[in-house]
Amino acid sequence: MSERKYRWIGTRAIRPDGLEKVTGRANYGADMAMPGMLHGAVLRSPHAHARIVSIDTRKAEKLPGVKAVITAKDLPDLPKELTGGVEGHVNLRELSHNCLARDKVLYHGHALAAVAATTLEIARAATRLIEVKYEVLPPVLDIEQAIAPGAVILDESRRTAMMRGNLPDGPTNIASRLEFARGDLAKGFAAADVVVEREFRTPMVHQGYIEPHACTARVGQDGQVTLWCCTQGGFLVRELVATLLGIDGAKVKVIPSEIGGGFGGKTTIYLEPLAVALARKANRPVKMVMTREEVFRATGPTSGSLMKAKIGARRDGTLVAADVNIWMEAGAFPGSPASAAAMCALTPYRIPNFRIDAYDVVVNKPKVAAYRAPGAPMGAFAVETVLDDLAKELRIDPIELRLRNAVQEGDTTPVGATLGPIGFRETLEAARKHPHYSAPLGPNQGRGVASGYWFNAGMQSSANVLLHPDGTAVVATGNPDIGGTRAAMALIVAEELGLPYERVRSVVLDTDSVGFTDLTGGSRTAVITGHAAQLAARQVVDQLRERAAGIWGIDPDEVRWEDGRAIATNGSSDLEPLTIDELAAKAGHTGGPITGRGSLYGVSAPTVGTHICDVEVDPETGVPRLLRYTVVQDAGKAIHPSYVEGQMQGGAVQGIGWALNEEYVYDAKGVMENPGFLDYRMPVASDLPMIDTVIVEVPNPHNPYGARGAGEIPIVPPLATVANAVSNATGVRFTELPLSPPRILERLGDR
Amino acid sequence: MSERKYRWIGTRAIRPDGLEKVTGRANYGADMAMPGMLHGAVLRSPHAHARIVSIDTRKAEKLPGVKAVITAKDLPDLPKELTGGVEGHVNLRELSHNCLARDKVLYHGHALAAVAATTLEIARAATRLIEVKYEVLPPVLDIEQAIAPGAVILDESRRTAMMRGNLPDGPTNIASRLEFARGDLAKGFAAADVVVEREFRTPMVHQGYIEPHACTARVGQDGQVTLWCCTQGGFLVRELVATLLGIDGAKVKVIPSEIGGGFGGKTTIYLEPLAVALARKANRPVKMVMTREEVFRATGPTSGSLMKAKIGARRDGTLVAADVNIWMEAGAFPGSPASAAAMCALTPYRIPNFRIDAYDVVVNKPKVAAYRAPGAPMGAFAVETVLDDLAKELRIDPIELRLRNAVQEGDTTPVGATLGPIGFRETLEAARKHPHYSAPLGPNQGRGVASGYWFNAGMQSSANVLLHPDGTAVVATGNPDIGGTRAAMALIVAEELGLPYERVRSVVLDTDSVGFTDLTGGSRTAVITGHAAQLAARQVVDQLRERAAGIWGIDPDEVRWEDGRAIATNGSSDLEPLTIDELAAKAGHTGGPITGRGSLYGVSAPTVGTHICDVEVDPETGVPRLLRYTVVQDAGKAIHPSYVEGQMQGGAVQGIGWALNEEYVYDAKGVMENPGFLDYRMPVASDLPMIDTVIVEVPNPHNPYGARGAGEIPIVPPLATVANAVSNATGVRFTELPLSPPRILERLGDR
Repeated sequence: MSERKYRWIGTRAIRPDGLEKVTGRANYGADMAMPGMLHGAVLRSPHAHARIVSIDTRKAEKLPGVKAVITAKDLPDLPKELTGGVEGHVNLRELSHNCLARDKVLYHGHALAAVAATTLEIARAATRLIEVKYEVLPPVLDIEQAIAPGAVILDESRRTAMMRGNLPDGPTNIASRLEFARGDLAKGFAAADVVVEREFRTPMVHQGYIEPHACTARVGQDGQVTLWCCTQGGFLVRELVATLLGIDGAKVKVIPSEIGGGFGGKTTIYLEPLAVALARKANRPVKMVMTREEVFRATGPTSGSLMKAKIGARRDGTLVAADVNIWMEAGAFPGSPASAAAMCALTPYRIPNFRIDAYDVVVNKPKVAAYRAPGAPMGAFAVETVLDDLAKELRIDPIELRLRNAVQEGDTTPVGATLGPIGFRETLEAARKHPHYSAPLGPNQGRGVASGYWFNAGMQSSANVLLHPDGTAVVATGNPDIGGTRAAMALIVAEELGLPYERVRSVVLDTDSVGFTDLTGGSRTAVITGHAAQLAARQVVDQLRERAAGIWGIDPDEVRWEDGRAIATNGSSDLEPLTIDELAAKAGHTGGPITGRGSLYGVSAPTVGTHICDVEVDPETGVPRLLRYTVVQDAGKAIHPSYVEGQMQGGAVQGIGWALNEEYVYDAKGVMENPGFLDYRMPVASDLPMIDTVIVEVPNPHNPYGARGAGEIPIVPPLATVANAVSNATGVRFTELPLSPPRILERLGDR
Repeated sequence: MSERKYRWIGTRAIRPDGLEKVTGRANYGADMAMPGMLHGAVLRSPHAHARIVSIDTRKAEKLPGVKAVITAKDLPDLPKELTGGVEGHVNLRELSHNCLARDKVLYHGHALAAVAATTLEIARAATRLIEVKYEVLPPVLDIEQAIAPGAVILDESRRTAMMRGNLPDGPTNIASRLEFARGDLAKGFAAADVVVEREFRTPMVHQGYIEPHACTARVGQDGQVTLWCCTQGGFLVRELVATLLGIDGAKVKVIPSEIGGGFGGKTTIYLEPLAVALARKANRPVKMVMTREEVFRATGPTSGSLMKAKIGARRDGTLVAADVNIWMEAGAFPGSPASAAAMCALTPYRIPNFRIDAYDVVVNKPKVAAYRAPGAPMGAFAVETVLDDLAKELRIDPIELRLRNAVQEGDTTPVGATLGPIGFRETLEAARKHPHYSAPLGPNQGRGVASGYWFNAGMQSSANVLLHPDGTAVVATGNPDIGGTRAAMALIVAEELGLPYERVRSVVLDTDSVGFTDLTGGSRTAVITGHAAQLAARQVVDQLRERAAGIWGIDPDEVRWEDGRAIATNGSSDLEPLTIDELAAKAGHTGGPITGRGSLYGVSAPTVGTHICDVEVDPETGVPRLLRYTVVQDAGKAIHPSYVEGQMQGGAVQGIGWALNEEYVYDAKGVMENPGFLDYRMPVASDLPMIDTVIVEVPNPHNPYGARGAGEIPIVPPLATVANAVSNATGVRFTELPLSPPRILERLGDR
């Protein structure tokens, strides 16, 4: 595989959607408009925790311009155990209750009712006329509160689901517990020469996508639903909306718009079922767009976490035991990424004795959603900072310590899987020999290094490849293009067909127009959907060989496809190669149009990264300034290196923001105090150095080009990398994020 | 084939697009709007024939609000022999010159220049500021003028292309001549007991679609073209626009809107390249919509014709010789359907000695376009009225005369093909035994009968079938739905998969989203594209069988698909059938999404019809009133009988209008005097009786269900049927259309 010479794979072609996006012409979720369209607004809970006694919508309905008002009563009451969504993991009744609260409101901002009116102003005014009687309850705002004996319980019917391990029965806020273990923990720690144990806290942080959630719904008089929305998965939205509204999927078409960032946060639904229900009730199209405040208050951040990590090593650096406990805030309904954190935190290392416990805990905050390698950054923050302290105590270079324990192909992961080829040692070696790692540091400066592991997703993808009679081709998939995947698809099809990249159109289609495809997420699109595109292109090539064989009167097996030409291999020197242009033009009279389909359930392949970071901490103010940052990552094979590098840089920056600045600040009543980009501080260009990137390529054997998911892993190491750098700059170990100036300054005083 | 029992094929399911269309919600060509959109207007020639000396657009460009002005100079000057379009039969240079006149204007209304401006009013005002200097030439307005020695010549470089036969060389208005002959004409006529010879004339008539041509074009700054338009073929428009503008097809996407009728008239382009050229120049989207007057003056009617037919028969009714000459007006550029008329006129009958000559003649009128079975109605008008007169002279019932000479499977057509199964005798028998044929007639009433033949088109089609995890399916094709083909596709896929019809979505996609597909026309869509849909559905069924076999651990050959279920045929009684819902839900974990593709170059299969008509002619006013009309037609197998019947009724009505009322009226300067529906008289509901229909089904062996094209044949017999009825009501043979009251009254006076 690594021997294959590519003409297009691995080149830095211009992305097909680039110009439209940079010139502001591309259509995003809020850009749809149509005649007669109404505007929707949502009434949201002013309480973090309350029982809904009554909702009276009559005054709102009477406001001139109001065409429809809905509450949870307009949606079917779904059975308790009904699941669906990605791999069937979503509880649909809870999803419905998150979209419109039914009996209780569970967080400040929880949607209760929605209005469609002729103007947005009228719709908003109408929401204020809806009269809700609440029985206000005390809010549960953090993990300690939630799991304490006698805690206020969000849902009295909830019992802990134990995936492994066990917990006492009874009403609880612990939705589930997962345990992985191997060996003998006590013996392991007994054999350790050094043990480091720490407790960590990370706050809820938001994905911070530029584009707020937006959708427009239209319902025909025959019940046909058309829904435009910004989403990471049109097919997912189709299924969820149909189920939540009790509509046959045959009547629902979802058209994904361009998407202004998702990072996992657009893998669920919020406004979509409301817009459809309003459109159905009003018999008019309805558009709904969130404000930034609504995005913060009521869409999925990732979990706040509480973690305890204890790791023991022998004097030579051999890790012998690890005990990790992870609690994560799921928000109002279960579904934190605690289990994913547990599946990743220790996986890069060979540790004979370990236990990882992961707890999914509900609290009165917004229901979390996926955020780039969900859970893994927190787990890595704990494990990789403990490793850093172990390295210090052992006086072993931190990269060397990791190398001595790094997993390789054939090792068994904590979940019991056998690792395939994985480039962990290769990223560590590349980081160690990078000039950054040996560059001199000045006073108050520190260098941090940390690694991370992410399993990536596989799942289902489909693709079509069409060959036009003029010799141009189209590759069509169902994955909204977030990170340049249109370009990746075009490169793959150009490579397989032997066409110039510019002659391959790459398009994203709606749920009526291409086969079922799981969402754009899990770092799966270029890899798995790219594989589907390759399969579809191969079908086209097979047909081109057959057509050439038919023209020549030879067997298709005697035709080779090379550089966009059919070449006879039967030794007939009089058979001039037939080009793709010639064969495309003749397709009509050699059997008809040439198209190919590809689909698969993709096998996931994990990946790893190692980051290096230099910071300088101002001893007067506690301000940490990022001086230099390098991302080393195994991409398997970079289909389009520029967009892999973009993912590496973007993921690192999000992790840096999480490490240094970002956090949800709640008051005692459970009201978020910083629901806007002025107060919720994300890194901007002036906060950052250029992020250097080094792509390592250890091929993924499951992908025709060796590609591995590249989008999520870069957010895994930064929390620990930055924390290790700050620790080295200050001599103080910080275990709570963000590393904001007041927090640093306070601990500098301790020093 | 005829043995197969169908659950869905042949039922009268509700069409998926019906409700949206009847409630006015469906989007047609003019319904697209977008921000920043400009409106286009066209400057058209006030002369029927003139040399363009100069065009000065400067004043127009200076008018505030004008953003772009184009003339033929903005389009590439294409090579003289460049062809393309349907089966490569379109001269693209001439098409370009028809879209924008380059050296000469060749008809009143010929487009010369186009303007895009911020409002339609400004655009129109700007066209009036364009200064054109003409050298006016005498117009050539009919066939006699055009072919007379010393005629004014439209194009001095034109020489007659002789497909068969020969003509003297030199500049001419006869663009081509085609001859079919067999046997010995002189001997044939010598053997005849009766010979009838007549000369016929039919006027230019328009397809009269409700929706005027309309399109909206958008050109990105990277040159990507998106074009929305009402058309019978998005892929055709894509190719033609790309070629006429010199743009790589890879940059052009055509999105067909719903279409408000085409009847062949929307199988070419007019505004489309202008809108794209304007949008490119103005860097803004441009919308262009024709007025009804523009539709009449400058879009394709079908040809006016001059025909001579001489047929001889023996006393027993055996036809022995036929000599037919057909001249047709092509309009400004070659391309009349004279050759198609020649391919059909004598085909229903066994005639041992014949000759048919067909001439394509250019005149200073709009370039003709296809109109439902192009040419065949005129040919049938000549032949079928001569047969009627022969029947009278021979005192043989006209249906009996036809039956004695009717072709059957195995006969050779005039073009030399061997007929497959064909239901001509069956339609004649069905007509003869229909109660209509023996119903009594009153005074001044007459009954006419006539038949017709149409070869139908085959050509290329593609289809995709997608199976969603929820067990619903989508069938996607590239044929704009004119006559209910969405319903036909859904019926086919429901039949093959064993799904309820309501669970199959049927969609029409753009040129990026489905494989190449020739236009909706030639009565090919339900038959050929339906065949592609069947092939795609069969691929889905094959995969369903494979998945079931995999689940059961048996061979796919041991799995039968029946009624939407996989059934094990290996005798294992413990294997419960797996339903399509179950298999769809499991698809993810049995190999991934299930989709199918189908494509083919379809073989055409001809069809026939026999019509019966009763008229009463008012002897005072000459007004012919239609009393009763019955259409008998071989549909092979009616996929959706209601829509076949709709085609039969609609085709008959168009033929009736052509027979009785419709005609282009020109003044001596070549200006059409009746370019509107008030003066161009099409039949309305109150002019017509209910049209009875009888579907005969003689299966087409090339189609999986036996279906034959049904959309065009019904317009073939009516001209002759009505003329025969009027002849029988009045005792006068009319050979010139329309049979308008003044024309009838005049001849009644002769009587």
